[in-house]
Amino acid sequence: MSEMTAAATDGHPFDAMLHLQPQADGSFVAHTHAGYANMVGPYGGATAALLLQGVLQHPDRLGEPLSLTVNFAGPVQDGPMHLVVRVVRTNRTTQHWLVELRQSDATTGQEHTVTTASVVTALRRSVFEQQLAAAPQVPPPQDCPEFDVSRAMTWLQRYEWRVISGGLPTTWDDSCHLVQTRLWVRDRPARALDFASLAALCDVFFPRIWLVRARPVPIGTVSLTVYFHADAAQLAAHGSAHVLGQADGQVLRGGFFDQSAQLWDAQGQLLATSHQIVYYKE
Amino acid sequence: MSEMTAAATDGHPFDAMLHLQPQADGSFVAHTHAGYANMVGPYGGATAALLLQGVLQHPDRLGEPLSLTVNFAGPVQDGPMHLVVRVVRTNRTTQHWLVELRQSDATTGQEHTVTTASVVTALRRSVFEQQLAAAPQVPPPQDCPEFDVSRAMTWLQRYEWRVISGGLPTTWDDSCHLVQTRLWVRDRPARALDFASLAALCDVFFPRIWLVRARPVPIGTVSLTVYFHADAAQLAAHGSAHVLGQADGQVLRGGFFDQSAQLWDAQGQLLATSHQIVYYKE
Repeated sequence: MSEMTAAATDGHPFDAMLHLQPQADGSFVAHTHAGYANMVGPYGGATAALLLQGVLQHPDRLGEPLSLTVNFAGPVQDGPMHLVVRVVRTNRTTQHWLVELRQSDATTGQEHTVTTASVVTALRRSVFEQQLAAAPQVPPPQDCPEFDVSRAMTWLQRYEWRVISGGLPTTWDDSCHLVQTRLWVRDRPARALDFASLAALCDVFFPRIWLVRARPVPIGTVSLTVYFHADAAQLAAHGSAHVLGQADGQVLRGGFFDQSAQLWDAQGQLLATSHQIVYYKE
Repeated sequence: MSEMTAAATDGHPFDAMLHLQPQADGSFVAHTHAGYANMVGPYGGATAALLLQGVLQHPDRLGEPLSLTVNFAGPVQDGPMHLVVRVVRTNRTTQHWLVELRQSDATTGQEHTVTTASVVTALRRSVFEQQLAAAPQVPPPQDCPEFDVSRAMTWLQRYEWRVISGGLPTTWDDSCHLVQTRLWVRDRPARALDFASLAALCDVFFPRIWLVRARPVPIGTVSLTVYFHADAAQLAAHGSAHVLGQADGQVLRGGFFDQSAQLWDAQGQLLATSHQIVYYKE
């Protein structure tokens, strides 16, 4: 990591958001961060990163993140959070974790679970490798227009967006649009990529239904899965460069749609792939 | 459901495999089924279906399955299993569940968790709908050669396979092949499709690495996610017809590869989409 990158990481809002205070019983206390505020509660990608961070900071952890599934069970209220991290099983090359994010009810004081996650960490090995999903040919980040987030939802201001194709509709006219988005994205200010920020990046894409319908209907992610394909060395080499992202969808039905995402580095190496199922209102 | 279908379901090995004995504390006892045996322990798709069944049979369940993530934490031994099903949160349209499959250690008698799952059930609503992923144009099942499973692993004999493209290599010669498979598949004997059998079908595809490398290296699914797009009415209308499946992969790296699957009915309606991350040895 260059000195410039290290300096930029210092005091970064993403690190402040990830701050976990270890408790005597092995759990952690965290607090929602105003910089990652969404319409209601925090940005889902930030919550996903926080639950992963509970595993990353756990003293018994084996290896690096391989998969993460986050279930957004209920709204996260602005305020303190309690993170309970449990190792389910440790094998030779994989380790299985369950994480629960709990908050106290303002009136009864009783704790209830607002988000759950399962995490698998793993030891990667030098074996046969092949990438089948080639990155699309796109112009470099500096040639792509920067999406103006100055008046956008707070969490959007935590990212630098350079949309290549499939941006938000310029008019909300109920017309039918393509579902695919391609963009360059990174933390703002720039921050060296790590597993937690990669997890958060998997959730940055605008809800596919907004593009398909050109109508900003209320939505909420129900379940998000991330598969990490990069190891720590690849992330370290990436530094604070832009990530190339592509998002797609397969079906909207019965009030739920799916959304997939692929994240590559500028050299076309896959960093992560992700899937989510999302509630939509109408 | 026609009477013929109902009769065919009666005493089906899949139903026997799914048999759950309710316990006084709300948990269930199950037993591995010899008919779904894999190389070591049961077929992963059968285990996924069993964990989902624990939620389907729970008296407090709201709605139908929307998403299922199964983490294969450790080997499932042939014998009795203990299924602990917990409702984490009930909302107006979604409900979140955690399921643990436990087995007792033969020597110490101590119970340990061998598989975990998170499940979301949901009330589907009549809202805007659009399918974006069209089913491929393929010949009907009766025109596709049936894959001979008479000498195959036991669980493979529980399915009728009609491979369209991307079957197993005919020679294991380390050559490089395409990663995509298309096939028609259904339970054998035929059985009316339901959420549990749909979950199991998501895992039937041969490991992508066997096709890519034309080498049958040892593999094991680490985590599997299923998104259900069909509702109960669509499944009932489907009956015991063949399901059209397509499997793909994006990357093999560091000892783990990803695999995706899409399942359509003969009319081209998406029934489910699925993703998994799989360990490979070399």
